Amino acid sequence: MIVLNGGSSSGKSGIVRCLQAVLPDPWLALGTDTLIDVMPASLQTSEGGIAFAPDGGVSVGPEFRALEAAWTAGVAAMARAGARVVLDEVFLGGADSQQRWRKALGDLRVLWVGVRCDGAVAAGREVARGDRIVGMAASQAEAVHRGVVYDLEVDTTRAESMECARTIAARVG
Amino acid sequence: MIVLNGGSSSGKSGIVRCLQAVLPDPWLALGTDTLIDVMPASLQTSEGGIAFAPDGGVSVGPEFRALEAAWTAGVAAMARAGARVVLDEVFLGGADSQQRWRKALGDLRVLWVGVRCDGAVAAGREVARGDRIVGMAASQAEAVHRGVVYDLEVDTTRAESMECARTIAARVG
Amino acid sequence: MIVLNGGSSSGKSGIVRCLQAVLPDPWLALGTDTLIDVMPASLQTSEGGIAFAPDGGVSVGPEFRALEAAWTAGVAAMARAGARVVLDEVFLGGADSQQRWRKALGDLRVLWVGVRCDGAVAAGREVARGDRIVGMAASQAEAVHRGVVYDLEVDTTRAESMECARTIAARVG
Amino acid sequence: MIVLNGGSSSGKSGIVRCLQAVLPDPWLALGTDTLIDVMPASLQTSEGGIAFAPDGGVSVGPEFRALEAAWTAGVAAMARAGARVVLDEVFLGGADSQQRWRKALGDLRVLWVGVRCDGAVAAGREVARGDRIVGMAASQAEAVHRGVVYDLEVDTTRAESMECARTIAARVG
Repeated sequence: MIVLNGGSSSGKSGIVRCLQAVLPDPWLALGTDTLIDVMPASLQTSEGGIAFAPDGGVSVGPEFRALEAAWTAGVAAMARAGARVVLDEVFLGGADSQQRWRKALGDLRVLWVGVRCDGAVAAGREVARGDRIVGMAASQAEAVHRGVVYDLEVDTTRAESMECARTIAARVG
Repeated sequence: MIVLNGGSSSGKSGIVRCLQAVLPDPWLALGTDTLIDVMPASLQTSEGGIAFAPDGGVSVGPEFRALEAAWTAGVAAMARAGARVVLDEVFLGGADSQQRWRKALGDLRVLWVGVRCDGAVAAGREVARGDRIVGMAASQAEAVHRGVVYDLEVDTTRAESMECARTIAARVG
Repeated sequence: MIVLNGGSSSGKSGIVRCLQAVLPDPWLALGTDTLIDVMPASLQTSEGGIAFAPDGGVSVGPEFRALEAAWTAGVAAMARAGARVVLDEVFLGGADSQQRWRKALGDLRVLWVGVRCDGAVAAGREVARGDRIVGMAASQAEAVHRGVVYDLEVDTTRAESMECARTIAARVG
Repeated sequence: MIVLNGGSSSGKSGIVRCLQAVLPDPWLALGTDTLIDVMPASLQTSEGGIAFAPDGGVSVGPEFRALEAAWTAGVAAMARAGARVVLDEVFLGGADSQQRWRKALGDLRVLWVGVRCDGAVAAGREVARGDRIVGMAASQAEAVHRGVVYDLEVDTTRAESMECARTIAARVG
């Protein structure tokens, strides 16, 4: 199992697709975006669910947390059932978020990867993508790494997704 | 847990979104489309993975099957961990596909729902959607229901998604 | 040239894709959604541009209007240069919006088509689609037809997109 | 009017969105992708239309060419009617494609911008995006610039979209 953690527009999803292309075995790509997609529309913009403020702030409520806990248990079960899984996460709670996953994954072998990107560069890419609320990249760039411990870190400020994926793949298997 | 089974363009996804809106508790919406989305691009068009023929035929290979088995175990684990899950499935193998899910879900309470749609009508909707290979709707309309046993059946040929969702919701909880 | 006018979630886009499939010659599909897509993100949610209220209301400002006027002139020029164009419009201003297009299209041969859908049914389809602000369908269902004159009207409340497309195609050429 | 020309996955669309964000006036973003989107599905994969080979090759037929000519005339008309337009093009025919646009745009003031990207880097980004046929980036990286004359060139191999957009914006108005 590979867990990537990084802020919005840091380039995690691009790295994940490159990883799926360069790793010899097939890997499932799951993550925060998948979870939000499968939630009810009402939780995608509410106090009990996940709310995106116009300035890029993100807050998460109790109903979101409850579904997230079950989701986490299910993802761990997929890995235990033999699936190779690369997780694309945004640790809004920093070290606490990592601790939550660490507990759920238990004795599974995990490669923890930090995906860094300079906040100003990520903010520019956020505008270039055109499908994200402007402000998320800047507000998350540092915060999501607070207290998190990695086996490996990559920085997309200057490195391409494919190059980062190759660095990560070299540490797998 | 609710499992919807029906052919491509039979209207399952619309019913799922309406179910998420009308059911009082939050439900996760998972299914075949989610699984395909999280697979490597290489498995989305290959012999080992899932292949879509120009005439709408779909074939599935051993690598797809292996990941699908782990996925199935993980979805069951999410439900056991307390998540309400509505599954949006295409039972390409008919009764065998149902048996596979039945085994994975074990003692979980499941409502099995058949989503029917006249093949010619589904074929027209496939053209109207514009994002599906033309031919899938017609070839799956009958085949996916072969030997499958339901608690409830809805028919979108003449009923709206919202109406079908209300019928299903009335049987839940 | 074919101009379809109808409220949000009345089924216009589905009819357009079916028209493109059943008409013997190739037709370009343009419309309000295309225009919004090509505008700057800043105009997609602002007072000078187009703003979508949480209750489904839509308001349009002066900068949007200016670009729209140039867009309209350009679409008319495409048709004059020989392109067959099917327009997918939401006449927020009713008869005034039609008058604006009538003036731009001048002597071009136009088939004006009203796409009706019962407001409650369109509201249900809006939920089923999951990608529209809930409330637009209901608020536009009647308003967009006010004072508009048609050569032909179709009603998607009970008719499929393909059936409506065939009715329209029979009047073309 | 601004015309950007570059190969697939060279980063044009990102630059366009950044341009729309940094330029003080509102600009419409049109281009090859818009045209393909509004064509009938049948022309998107056929000999008469546009065909994408599995190796990334692109071929264009007579029916596509006819609609493209009318489209070009219409875009020029939008600009003459006062719209600021930034065009995102792939000059598959190199200098000939530029000549075709030059003729259509006549006396309009145009800034011709070449968007370069190293072929290997663009090929990596193509994998990272995950929504393009692999091979297009490599086959177009050089070919689309053959014989084309620019007012300005940017290179996304090492520069961010936002930085390129600022360079271009400095030459406008």
